[in-house]
Amino acid sequence: MKAVVNVYLKNGVLDPQGKATHHALESMSFTGVNDVRIGKQIILQLQSEDKEQALIEVKEMCEALLANTVIEDYDIEIK
Amino acid sequence: MKAVVNVYLKNGVLDPQGKATHHALESMSFTGVNDVRIGKQIILQLQSEDKEQALIEVKEMCEALLANTVIEDYDIEIK
Repeated sequence: MKAVVNVYLKNGVLDPQGKATHHALESMSFTGVNDVRIGKQIILQLQSEDKEQALIEVKEMCEALLANTVIEDYDIEIK
Repeated sequence: MKAVVNVYLKNGVLDPQGKATHHALESMSFTGVNDVRIGKQIILQLQSEDKEQALIEVKEMCEALLANTVIEDYDIEIK
């Protein structure tokens, strides 16, 4: 079973990586962009075949390691 | 209009960040994980309201800046 975890900065938290990318795009004449935010996408291959159990486990991983919940939010998709 | 770009390492390309995360998860007693791969998720707020035009533009951005197409693949979702 596969879990896709998207980790992104909370609204209001400055994203210097996104700002730099936005600036770079503008300097390359891509002017139609209003904002850029950059997050992480973590893909986990799980042994578990139980969807609910997998979700609980991945949530624990996010809280413990994968996301910094002070400044980041995350969402989990089990496939 | 919003574009979500997922950039991830091609199959076969070593992912040290993923390996380190996998190792850390195991050392924290999350033993049910077979593999971890880490990519980027880039969220672009676009001025364009034309979905097809937006897709073309974002694809150009990926080829020019957002992805290193030698070692990375990407997919684009326009919302």
